[in-house]
Amino acid sequence: MELFYSNDIDASRCRLDAEESAHCVRVLRHRVGDTIHVIDGKGTLLTCRLTDDNPRGAEAAILERQAHWGAHPYRLTIGCCPTKNNDRFEWFVEKATEVGVDRIVPLIGERSERKVYKPERAQRIALSATKQSLKARIPEITDPVSVKEFIARETPGQAWGDVKLIAYCFEDAEHPRTSIREALSAFRGTDVTVLIGPEGDFSPEEAALALQNGYIPVHLGPSRLRTETAAVTAAVAVYLAFLGDN
Amino acid sequence: MELFYSNDIDASRCRLDAEESAHCVRVLRHRVGDTIHVIDGKGTLLTCRLTDDNPRGAEAAILERQAHWGAHPYRLTIGCCPTKNNDRFEWFVEKATEVGVDRIVPLIGERSERKVYKPERAQRIALSATKQSLKARIPEITDPVSVKEFIARETPGQAWGDVKLIAYCFEDAEHPRTSIREALSAFRGTDVTVLIGPEGDFSPEEAALALQNGYIPVHLGPSRLRTETAAVTAAVAVYLAFLGDN
Repeated sequence: MELFYSNDIDASRCRLDAEESAHCVRVLRHRVGDTIHVIDGKGTLLTCRLTDDNPRGAEAAILERQAHWGAHPYRLTIGCCPTKNNDRFEWFVEKATEVGVDRIVPLIGERSERKVYKPERAQRIALSATKQSLKARIPEITDPVSVKEFIARETPGQAWGDVKLIAYCFEDAEHPRTSIREALSAFRGTDVTVLIGPEGDFSPEEAALALQNGYIPVHLGPSRLRTETAAVTAAVAVYLAFLGDN
Repeated sequence: MELFYSNDIDASRCRLDAEESAHCVRVLRHRVGDTIHVIDGKGTLLTCRLTDDNPRGAEAAILERQAHWGAHPYRLTIGCCPTKNNDRFEWFVEKATEVGVDRIVPLIGERSERKVYKPERAQRIALSATKQSLKARIPEITDPVSVKEFIARETPGQAWGDVKLIAYCFEDAEHPRTSIREALSAFRGTDVTVLIGPEGDFSPEEAALALQNGYIPVHLGPSRLRTETAAVTAAVAVYLAFLGDN
């Protein structure tokens, strides 16, 4: 099943941009009258009939809409410090999108190797991974934000039932860490936030601020994981925690 | 902590090959008398004193041996059909090694896109991921084997307590699938085998043969995962299942 993306959708029809039109008409050779499937990137799948097969601007009439198509039963935000090697972070974006994530926040930590991050490329990777994994909602890749700013900004006004986890390496006698699996199994809500630090870990100040703001300190087990591996492991841990038992 | 690998170890000393010697002496500038850490690739960490800093063949005296260093509390074999794009399979090898896997078997399925596979490159990736993630045991990357041959060859003589899982996409009324999380939580042994099929899934004959041989059919949840993502998800599921609750 081939999916196209459109951000130009009204009550009865949708239009594909130049890139999607070329892929639809030139590459896949769809013609007027063909049925195509279009996602709006917000969670809805549109079943459409192609009404204009212009390879620079195709149009289609909407036959059916399916909301929450390919949705997962949780809302997951992963805040992760981008790696020095951009490919590794983008690989995490692709894999987390396949597994199921709602928002990825590139975090700039006090010990981050990478202090600037441009989300455009990662957003394109998230779009293609969304289509490839048959989902209708594209995860949001936000602009980068400092760890402390994210913690301060996000905490107020979160709904009841949220769980906020911070994965860090150093143990703090006052705040012993539990495994991410245990922290998630004790939790009954659906909104999950996980923070993953840079190779050099969060600074003690960043970790302390998170704990003050209700973050639960967790570990990802005994293996020493690269940043992007830790982030994917966290995404899979959340995905598995919300799997039915059959 | 920098790890070196040696396969030339006796009771009192070890020798580094040309590549490891150059890295130790030329790159990291270690000199006679320095303490270095060497893994034997079989699970033991050696703390050594450098006795010959020849950049083409360094030698060290063994001061201390630590068995089961960086070991995980399970034995995991993942049989996975290599992807058309080699990088994706090698990425799985790297990530599974970081998380914790003992043996990776490249499987050739009836629907495999890739019918030949050379394990040498993946074995090198497994070595560097082993050193990077501070483990002393290098996962074995076996020669490729057909799915049916693997199932037939592996099944006899497995120890009590083994669990063998096959992740496949189609549902079989006779053999309803449970989630991999549920299958693992019901299990008390330590030896786990997971089979991951190609993009086109296992053939019905391959799946039937696995079920006849005691494989439990599992699913990895509702998301449609690429082969390498499914394989890493399975590795993480096993890793998390064996995490202590604190």
